[in-house]
Amino acid sequence: MPINRREFNHGLALSLGLLPFQRFGTPEPLSVNDQRLYGHLLSLASIGKNPEGGVSRVAYSDADKLGRKFVLIQMKSASLDVTIDAAGNLIGRRNGSDNQLKPLLMGSHIDSVPEGGNYDGVVGSLSAIEVARTLAENNITLRHPLEVVIFQNEEGGLIGSRAMDGELTEKELDLVSRSGKTIREGIKFIGGDPDKLNEVRRQKGDIAAYLELHIEQGGTLDSEKINIGIVEGIVGINWWDVTIEGFANHAGTTAMNNRQDALLAAAKFIEAVNRVVTSVPGRQVGTVGRINAFPGAPNVIPGKVVLSLELRDLDAAKINLLYGKIYAEAQAIAKTSRTKFDFKEINVNIPAPTDPRIRSLIAEAARELGLSTKSMPSGAGHDAQDMARLGPVGMIFVPSVGGISHSPKEFTRPSDIANGANVLLHALLKLDKSA
Amino acid sequence: MPINRREFNHGLALSLGLLPFQRFGTPEPLSVNDQRLYGHLLSLASIGKNPEGGVSRVAYSDADKLGRKFVLIQMKSASLDVTIDAAGNLIGRRNGSDNQLKPLLMGSHIDSVPEGGNYDGVVGSLSAIEVARTLAENNITLRHPLEVVIFQNEEGGLIGSRAMDGELTEKELDLVSRSGKTIREGIKFIGGDPDKLNEVRRQKGDIAAYLELHIEQGGTLDSEKINIGIVEGIVGINWWDVTIEGFANHAGTTAMNNRQDALLAAAKFIEAVNRVVTSVPGRQVGTVGRINAFPGAPNVIPGKVVLSLELRDLDAAKINLLYGKIYAEAQAIAKTSRTKFDFKEINVNIPAPTDPRIRSLIAEAARELGLSTKSMPSGAGHDAQDMARLGPVGMIFVPSVGGISHSPKEFTRPSDIANGANVLLHALLKLDKSA
Repeated sequence: MPINRREFNHGLALSLGLLPFQRFGTPEPLSVNDQRLYGHLLSLASIGKNPEGGVSRVAYSDADKLGRKFVLIQMKSASLDVTIDAAGNLIGRRNGSDNQLKPLLMGSHIDSVPEGGNYDGVVGSLSAIEVARTLAENNITLRHPLEVVIFQNEEGGLIGSRAMDGELTEKELDLVSRSGKTIREGIKFIGGDPDKLNEVRRQKGDIAAYLELHIEQGGTLDSEKINIGIVEGIVGINWWDVTIEGFANHAGTTAMNNRQDALLAAAKFIEAVNRVVTSVPGRQVGTVGRINAFPGAPNVIPGKVVLSLELRDLDAAKINLLYGKIYAEAQAIAKTSRTKFDFKEINVNIPAPTDPRIRSLIAEAARELGLSTKSMPSGAGHDAQDMARLGPVGMIFVPSVGGISHSPKEFTRPSDIANGANVLLHALLKLDKSA
Repeated sequence: MPINRREFNHGLALSLGLLPFQRFGTPEPLSVNDQRLYGHLLSLASIGKNPEGGVSRVAYSDADKLGRKFVLIQMKSASLDVTIDAAGNLIGRRNGSDNQLKPLLMGSHIDSVPEGGNYDGVVGSLSAIEVARTLAENNITLRHPLEVVIFQNEEGGLIGSRAMDGELTEKELDLVSRSGKTIREGIKFIGGDPDKLNEVRRQKGDIAAYLELHIEQGGTLDSEKINIGIVEGIVGINWWDVTIEGFANHAGTTAMNNRQDALLAAAKFIEAVNRVVTSVPGRQVGTVGRINAFPGAPNVIPGKVVLSLELRDLDAAKINLLYGKIYAEAQAIAKTSRTKFDFKEINVNIPAPTDPRIRSLIAEAARELGLSTKSMPSGAGHDAQDMARLGPVGMIFVPSVGGISHSPKEFTRPSDIANGANVLLHALLKLDKSA
């Protein structure tokens, strides 16, 4: 009986049907200490806590630094050998029985968006530590060395994981992050050394595999009452800034038919984006999230609008197809509204498929624990997408109540966190045997 | 031969067809010195000049103060008896032959919007001074006392004229103007006394009439090649702030059919405003000039949008009709997009009709000068709308090239300025006789 069961009344939970993965007549499978895991989550939630709920633990803030200190202590107490790499990632290593093998990695992040929630990144980070602790407590040594990685600044552009696969550019280091510090300053602030990022860089094939548990951040698992999402891949994300040039003029003296109203053209464009994206079957999404109209006075016809266009799908070809249609719609709107549309590509994250073999191991682990599963894309970006450049990756999703994320209202039930951590544990064990 | 003709070769101008109001065989009508007037306009254009052209002579700025000093000197040199009233308006008085009569007022403003042009307000202000100077130079004494009024801070909400008709509230004095100063501080800065605004206030019937020459700020006169616009009235302006509440969510993980996208609802609304306003005959205008989407990130579905809605027409009933239709459209959009629309009335300027008798005097003056005319509404607000609360008003428009205003590209031809000033002069003379 692993000691980590002691705080939880499994007999009661079973009689209440709270532990669907327990089957009578078979030995209990190894499992994490779910109460301890949840306790750590509550502790971390107090670091950077907002008065109105949720946390603001923006990367490179004081709250981020304190949160990292808390996590570092947890990693050490889970018998991990912890270092801070030059990029500022926290890496906790546990030897395998054959240290010549490439390492198995598990991880996530603990930084948040401003006024974010307590689950995004945190569930995966603390579960990875809990899984390592469970191995230690049960004196289980994997074949592979294990690394628990807490990536720094995921929310501000996957900075830690992009340093690891060499995607982070020198130029980006001087961009100002949400903390007010540049990324370079931020890396120093959390104990890294931005001049030595080359030491952090790993090559394709350097890792045996990477596993990440994460909250879904969408509402599919919650609404369909499914325990575990098996991520097919992380969608590609293309982001453009679209500038619409009309002509600013007096709102009182310029007749309706003499206007070159950039905001009216923008309105037609926003509708067109929605129409195009929903016109073909599939799970693609398209969003206009930011808009600025200039000069921006109630009594002046907007002469210029800048807005963001973001398209996401698992298939890069579909993104290109949608973009082509949207671009054509923009040209048609430009013509009728006597405006000019200009598209500037700001960022492209290519889709990152997960490894089919790891997907089936996750499915097997979930099935053995009596949990229902569903294959799905990840609409959000994750550190896993960069790890996919280094080796095979797998991602496990647990339900987000109401699909709410990046919000103080973000919530994942403790039982779902426990399920996710246990699937992570058993997927890791299977992977270690087969990799 | 009035002395002010000396700098200009009228014979040459006539032979070139530059002076359409000159007719052979009849005595030359009294006219302003158009070259001098244009020279003063160029001088004033150098005060607060932008590097890229135009001026930024925002009320209560150093440039505004210097511009007012320049104008004050011009007023004095035009033999006007100048005072600064408690509101900071410059008032230049010239006695009439019967000082028991109520005064005739002429005026405009010299403050500008940020990065404005050299004509808005300036043409009317300097022409009013030029008309007074022409009277003085020709030893013409009107029956009525004459007051040339340079209203302060027209662009920031008709502050000077609203002080005069008692519309300016104590609360408004503490609002921060574009200069960074509160209006109260601004009034002190330009030599007024905000504690004595009651001294400035005039009552209905206190003035014989008010005349204002202004650039059209629209493109009608220019495109139709008409010399003079006779303003039927100043349109009513209703301004609402519209708040659209949706639900902010992750742009990657929230399926298209699960969104409550406030910006998509806003786009439909902006289109609806345009559709409703152009669905009925007339010269009404409707504008969405300002929009803010929250949280305003490319990867977050906007949960809230705040935008401005402005409707203008000469007929308040038509504004109400249009608003009713727009409000109904908003409710329909709210229903289909699962958002909520809230309308907050920010400001209402009721329409201010001009005086029919003054309109016909202006038409008569223009006809006698050989100038073509067109009756039209003023889509822009003017100090004249507040003077309309005190007595009969008339407004004269001159063409704006391309209809451009509130822009460094604002331009009115010198010949059109001369025409406007001469119509102002003769309308004043007629009004003095008949009022």
